[in-house]
Amino acid sequence: MLKVAVVGASGYTGVELLRILHCHPEAAVTCITSEQSAGKPVSDLFPSLRGRYAQVLENLEPVRVAEKADIIFTALPHKAAMEVVPTFLKLGKRVIDLSADYRFNDAATYEQWYEPHMNPHLLPKAVYGLPEVRRVAVKGAKLVANPGCYPTSVILGLQPLLKHKLIDTTGIISDSASGVSGAGRGAKVDNLYCEVNEGFKAYGVGGVHRHTPEMEQELSLLAEERITITFTPHLVPMDRGILSTIYGRLLAPATTAELAGLYAEFYGGEPFVRVLPAGGVPSTAHVRGSNFCDIGVVVDQRTGRVIVVSAIDNLVKGASGQAVQNMNIMCGLPEGLGLEGLALVP
Amino acid sequence: MLKVAVVGASGYTGVELLRILHCHPEAAVTCITSEQSAGKPVSDLFPSLRGRYAQVLENLEPVRVAEKADIIFTALPHKAAMEVVPTFLKLGKRVIDLSADYRFNDAATYEQWYEPHMNPHLLPKAVYGLPEVRRVAVKGAKLVANPGCYPTSVILGLQPLLKHKLIDTTGIISDSASGVSGAGRGAKVDNLYCEVNEGFKAYGVGGVHRHTPEMEQELSLLAEERITITFTPHLVPMDRGILSTIYGRLLAPATTAELAGLYAEFYGGEPFVRVLPAGGVPSTAHVRGSNFCDIGVVVDQRTGRVIVVSAIDNLVKGASGQAVQNMNIMCGLPEGLGLEGLALVP
Amino acid sequence: MLKVAVVGASGYTGVELLRILHCHPEAAVTCITSEQSAGKPVSDLFPSLRGRYAQVLENLEPVRVAEKADIIFTALPHKAAMEVVPTFLKLGKRVIDLSADYRFNDAATYEQWYEPHMNPHLLPKAVYGLPEVRRVAVKGAKLVANPGCYPTSVILGLQPLLKHKLIDTTGIISDSASGVSGAGRGAKVDNLYCEVNEGFKAYGVGGVHRHTPEMEQELSLLAEERITITFTPHLVPMDRGILSTIYGRLLAPATTAELAGLYAEFYGGEPFVRVLPAGGVPSTAHVRGSNFCDIGVVVDQRTGRVIVVSAIDNLVKGASGQAVQNMNIMCGLPEGLGLEGLALVP
Amino acid sequence: MLKVAVVGASGYTGVELLRILHCHPEAAVTCITSEQSAGKPVSDLFPSLRGRYAQVLENLEPVRVAEKADIIFTALPHKAAMEVVPTFLKLGKRVIDLSADYRFNDAATYEQWYEPHMNPHLLPKAVYGLPEVRRVAVKGAKLVANPGCYPTSVILGLQPLLKHKLIDTTGIISDSASGVSGAGRGAKVDNLYCEVNEGFKAYGVGGVHRHTPEMEQELSLLAEERITITFTPHLVPMDRGILSTIYGRLLAPATTAELAGLYAEFYGGEPFVRVLPAGGVPSTAHVRGSNFCDIGVVVDQRTGRVIVVSAIDNLVKGASGQAVQNMNIMCGLPEGLGLEGLALVP
Repeated sequence: MLKVAVVGASGYTGVELLRILHCHPEAAVTCITSEQSAGKPVSDLFPSLRGRYAQVLENLEPVRVAEKADIIFTALPHKAAMEVVPTFLKLGKRVIDLSADYRFNDAATYEQWYEPHMNPHLLPKAVYGLPEVRRVAVKGAKLVANPGCYPTSVILGLQPLLKHKLIDTTGIISDSASGVSGAGRGAKVDNLYCEVNEGFKAYGVGGVHRHTPEMEQELSLLAEERITITFTPHLVPMDRGILSTIYGRLLAPATTAELAGLYAEFYGGEPFVRVLPAGGVPSTAHVRGSNFCDIGVVVDQRTGRVIVVSAIDNLVKGASGQAVQNMNIMCGLPEGLGLEGLALVP
Repeated sequence: MLKVAVVGASGYTGVELLRILHCHPEAAVTCITSEQSAGKPVSDLFPSLRGRYAQVLENLEPVRVAEKADIIFTALPHKAAMEVVPTFLKLGKRVIDLSADYRFNDAATYEQWYEPHMNPHLLPKAVYGLPEVRRVAVKGAKLVANPGCYPTSVILGLQPLLKHKLIDTTGIISDSASGVSGAGRGAKVDNLYCEVNEGFKAYGVGGVHRHTPEMEQELSLLAEERITITFTPHLVPMDRGILSTIYGRLLAPATTAELAGLYAEFYGGEPFVRVLPAGGVPSTAHVRGSNFCDIGVVVDQRTGRVIVVSAIDNLVKGASGQAVQNMNIMCGLPEGLGLEGLALVP
Repeated sequence: MLKVAVVGASGYTGVELLRILHCHPEAAVTCITSEQSAGKPVSDLFPSLRGRYAQVLENLEPVRVAEKADIIFTALPHKAAMEVVPTFLKLGKRVIDLSADYRFNDAATYEQWYEPHMNPHLLPKAVYGLPEVRRVAVKGAKLVANPGCYPTSVILGLQPLLKHKLIDTTGIISDSASGVSGAGRGAKVDNLYCEVNEGFKAYGVGGVHRHTPEMEQELSLLAEERITITFTPHLVPMDRGILSTIYGRLLAPATTAELAGLYAEFYGGEPFVRVLPAGGVPSTAHVRGSNFCDIGVVVDQRTGRVIVVSAIDNLVKGASGQAVQNMNIMCGLPEGLGLEGLALVP
Repeated sequence: MLKVAVVGASGYTGVELLRILHCHPEAAVTCITSEQSAGKPVSDLFPSLRGRYAQVLENLEPVRVAEKADIIFTALPHKAAMEVVPTFLKLGKRVIDLSADYRFNDAATYEQWYEPHMNPHLLPKAVYGLPEVRRVAVKGAKLVANPGCYPTSVILGLQPLLKHKLIDTTGIISDSASGVSGAGRGAKVDNLYCEVNEGFKAYGVGGVHRHTPEMEQELSLLAEERITITFTPHLVPMDRGILSTIYGRLLAPATTAELAGLYAEFYGGEPFVRVLPAGGVPSTAHVRGSNFCDIGVVVDQRTGRVIVVSAIDNLVKGASGQAVQNMNIMCGLPEGLGLEGLALVP
């Protein structure tokens, strides 16, 4: 039985980790921290856990946390993660970090979009934990940088086209939309029910969202050339889900059936990627609460464009589910342990 | 491994059974029927099941269904259930019926609220399957009548007060509210998104909802006297959940703390009833997707009334989860198998 | 043309006043204040006003505000209102206060439920502004205390029964539910989209909600005897609307048709109360954005109870619309000016 | 006072016409038809109208309708409109048709995307009623083809760029999203609350949505060259609103500020188009229930793309509000009569 710590459990990715790990047969949560709510039972903060989690939230004292756990999930804001991760590693613990702090190969990029990096020497050791792209590297990793939610949906959507060099890499657009849990659990007027409900809007328009460089890093590696994309996130009045509608120009003619076939083959062995039959297009509703990434691909013959639509649950495949998938891989467990839950429909 | 059939899988309780059974380690779904969609892969109807359910929907031919399964869930509309259940029983199968057809001890009551009963001789053999009330009877049952969603919330809410004879049995009111999935998956204008969204309303006002006599039967048994209640259901713009706010007049003074303590003791051994600490009041959000019934109890000292608030997920504890709980009990399995999932929050 | 000030415009009742007044042919908004956002164009705070409101938000300096306006709406939190209202009155301005500060005839009651009153001598001069109860008094008022949202729905629902002395006044229950805008626009975790969405809960259970004494004061006046009620508010995942389901015991038998007829006659001349035909029950969806109070009345012959269901938009008839209705009455204008908008459906 | 008929009032655009016309000082609704519900009071179908609309729904007998009205709104499905519009015109009535039947200059295009046209000779006489594009032609029209909801948002969003020839016309993409009322009021499983709620999806992917050729016709006229666009609609779990995020490649470098300035100037005199300040991006929440089209424009300097985001209420500016705006223009009334309502926020 793995001993697991969840560090920073007062946000939505934290409680989602606890939800998933509760059904994991080989993991036991031995430590849960929250700076804001230390001393309270975790079930006071999240009544959904009542009766199943008796733990009290602890302060984040890295050495004490490390004593209690074999593997540590850091569900902290960026910056707060890099303040504690080095200690965990030094004490021989494996870490899966859900923040952006270790996602970039290059400290300069991180610093351009975030802030000065406190331990850039760790970046080469961190593995960007998208199993469908680099499962082998994850297996051996001590530090996994768990991908961002938008990047997960976009990279999985584009991977087959880029690996097969089927699209013009200069004009890719991803028009993506997220449920509100992606905005976190902080008390802000902008995220109040009445501010968000019954409205749909774009934000971070013009290439300014911080997930842009993360996507570009990974897409460039897949394409083996430098890719710049146009990425526009939107906010949907729903709790969970990301849908990315991705546009590319085909380099040579292809049909929807051909590309759907290619995708099905590409992802054939993947336990958590479901390629829809030709003409099918996913909905976030069908992955809500599950670790799946559903993908549909359609060719618009009138314009020569391919349109890929990918759907994930931002808190599962886009965060905590993927983190547990990474844990399973890192620890030599069956990859799907704890993750077999199907979407909650309706 | 139990072989399980789900009969009538095109509705929300059907797909919920499939969702739950997918994570049940001792049950295998061997037959799924749907009159409307026979011949289609079940994952065409419910894309959430893609990749995990390869089955094709079958016509409802009772003998063939019985051949394939040890235990049969009938998730059919009332009347359709009693057309097939006798065959299943005759062929030696155990049945858990999610319709109202076998919930009444008395055919006359059924016929007053529903329609002529086709096999009233089965009523004495059917067990009203609320484990927290009659677990032992469920254990030996061949036919379990799975309780209605509203009755589950009201009966569990009132049971301790009635068993301890703490309230006046003549003036009980339950003001209840349900998510929209309770209205089923039929194509009706009234249940369109735009008709339901952003509105709250009462319906079936004045004691005309069909769950009223069902509650009254069970509450009367608990109280050992004939109980008539005032029950008003409401429709909430959300997918899942029932909250019942139940009012009773205390026969003798009591404090919130005393009653909260009494409830905690009463339900102390129950795996799926969570009594909140004194002063706590539940939300459907904290049980969404789980098999819990959360209960809070408060005394209004100004009026001498006790107010019990109970929350369930209408599709889980109010239908398919409770059905699986009954299956586990009937088959001698650990009661919580397949039901340990915590609520999806948010 | 009336010159109107809206004091405290950064909340939902403030922006609702601006929305309604924009279509009022005899009122011009000449001053808008907000302590938090003074100096900003009001359309920065509420982009819905862009192009129609050019005003900049001002600090709340009472004398300056009074110079600019004939009539002043105070849409402030309680306590903040009583800090400025006396100045407005001293300067000869009429005031419609949307807070609780002047709703109680008795300072002791206010102080028991809120806090020490700063100008109790004004209470006898303030008129509780429910036109359907005391239109004549509103006409001559200098200071109108605009009713709370829950009380509006409950008092209008019960008025005919109490005036006709048809129910036992000792056992009245109101089970009410509100949309989230009733919780205000403050940045609190509890009101975040993901905390509220897809959940239904009770709060303030046991007679502790501050609207209780307000209802009791008015119901007692109508009944000409002291009334204590059981009131339970709930939170519905929607922006707007209050539905109250009110239970009373009939003193003598009556039919639904008789009571529906009595209600129709009672409210026959009222422009903003719509009594549904016998058997009809309202929905908040049908009053959303309008100043109507829709009422249905049903007798449960099995239990001898009458159930009244009333629906309002909490921000219109429950706050800003009623405030404008009061303004019209106070100023001798046609009562419906600016308030003829029908509900936004869907 | 104009006498107005609303033909086909049982859908959402029908009831929205009635809502808007109720506040129109120069129009009186003299006839309302519905084939499905003829004989019923319109307020039975839409309780929001109770007390303000006493009319009974009539059968659609064109001659009788024409006798009662000066101007006729046809809110019928396509095909049903062209069955009656010729009669209305023959009898000298002006018609505003909300269906697609008269939107195409070319019968062949209509027939390719819809079905055989029954009166193609009327197409040259019909004016595509987008006032911000052809106000003068609307003024003299006898038959106005009211634009589709998606095309309204896309054409208004692109007009300044195309008229100023600032973008490459070969690679335009519009990624658009609509609230559920756009799907109409028919009883379909796909539009049930529980099917739509808490999910986001694309549909009509690959250039197959029927609004595509409508946009292309109008964009081509603006650009004075044949334009083919990539258009992907999405469904948002909300009642109302369309947001279009439109991507174009700039032919020459430009800044966000320059383009925002250009848009502000272009639409400077328009009563219902609001251009946001540089950097601002609209939300459908701020136009809900109003006739505004809000537009934001941003340049992504990294990719040389311009991104235009436009927001409308699909039932107002995207349908019934625009229809009333057209009526006002056709009848020489002030363009904004009946349309001054601001968005319902929240």
